[in-house]
Amino acid sequence: MRFLTSAAAQQIDRDLMSEAGGFSIDQLMELAGLSCAEAVFHSYPPAQHKRILVACGPGNQGGDGLVAARHLHHFGYSPTIWYPKAKQAPLFDTQVSKETDVVLDSIFGFSFHGEPREPFRSALEAMIRAQKAQRAVPIVSVDIPSSWNVDEGPSTSELASSFQPNVLVSLTAPKMGVASFAGEKHWLGGRFVDPTVSAKYDLQLPAYPNTSQVVDITGAKPLDV
Amino acid sequence: MRFLTSAAAQQIDRDLMSEAGGFSIDQLMELAGLSCAEAVFHSYPPAQHKRILVACGPGNQGGDGLVAARHLHHFGYSPTIWYPKAKQAPLFDTQVSKETDVVLDSIFGFSFHGEPREPFRSALEAMIRAQKAQRAVPIVSVDIPSSWNVDEGPSTSELASSFQPNVLVSLTAPKMGVASFAGEKHWLGGRFVDPTVSAKYDLQLPAYPNTSQVVDITGAKPLDV
Repeated sequence: MRFLTSAAAQQIDRDLMSEAGGFSIDQLMELAGLSCAEAVFHSYPPAQHKRILVACGPGNQGGDGLVAARHLHHFGYSPTIWYPKAKQAPLFDTQVSKETDVVLDSIFGFSFHGEPREPFRSALEAMIRAQKAQRAVPIVSVDIPSSWNVDEGPSTSELASSFQPNVLVSLTAPKMGVASFAGEKHWLGGRFVDPTVSAKYDLQLPAYPNTSQVVDITGAKPLDV
Repeated sequence: MRFLTSAAAQQIDRDLMSEAGGFSIDQLMELAGLSCAEAVFHSYPPAQHKRILVACGPGNQGGDGLVAARHLHHFGYSPTIWYPKAKQAPLFDTQVSKETDVVLDSIFGFSFHGEPREPFRSALEAMIRAQKAQRAVPIVSVDIPSSWNVDEGPSTSELASSFQPNVLVSLTAPKMGVASFAGEKHWLGGRFVDPTVSAKYDLQLPAYPNTSQVVDITGAKPLDV
């Protein structure tokens, strides 16, 4: 399967929202959030994982997280949203360690680069602790595990190396940086790529089953490496 | 189940798009169109009904139809869109009688009243002919069968009485006018009604299964009649 660089992912987003692509940001975010919610449902059903903490970042991926939270509510979960604003105490540590069964990591997306700043850094550290604790709270990351380099993967920083989500939901197409992802499950979501865009970027996308907004691509490797 | 008057349906739409409701028209249209596409998939799978004619009207429901057509494409159908503009020949008759396996009727929605004008009137007559012909092209109507009175149902005109879709996809909640609907299948879609709106209008909505955007409500009758 084609894995995308950060630059290509950003270009595809622009193409989809161009006059030819015809999508509004609201439409793409709605379908991206729905894909994430479906992936969570198939990975951690609400009967066993009713409480989910949706960790939202400051950019568009935080918006995907908010949409996902709404769909998760309709799917039978009790979502709690962590959406930090300046000077608002995060309370993230308690939430992730004691009050949730799953975390949806929608903090940083395919435009992220550099090192995570506070309060996001502490939030990611709290997720790692909760994942390693006896309760073993699983992490579902959206598109790129937050803190990972979108092109290079987790090897570029200590925090990124220790942040290993259980489940990944790639949107549109997997990013180059997740080539080494070795978690339990890898989903592809974003069933809205038209043939023109798919051909332009030679995406070689798999077939989605029936009416699903996600397809299982566990074990997928990039064409180019 | 609660069945809605045209006035209540319009009020709910305004509530969903109010500051408290928080939805944009793009988001609601995306999910409404997806619900319609899922209902078509479950009623007439693409293996046997690859070609679908999506008949779009001039208002918001035409937009639902366009979104549905995109999802139907991704679900494996070959949709043809009929979206008439002034002075454009409709060609509807040939399309519906020879070149399609199903018609999605998204011509008029819950704000419709009065008598259908051309070219919509002829389009509805062509659908009726194709449905009664040997090929028996089935009709899936969105929310309210086009030409039916939203509150009173099909009894108010001759055209409306003869327009009897095989399948109905009610959105948000069924409208009063479809209380007499006796087609093969009745779906409810629009899995986005929050508890506040649901309580305010005492909607008594059924539970949707798993991640589905539609639920089978065949045989549902209004609470009030």
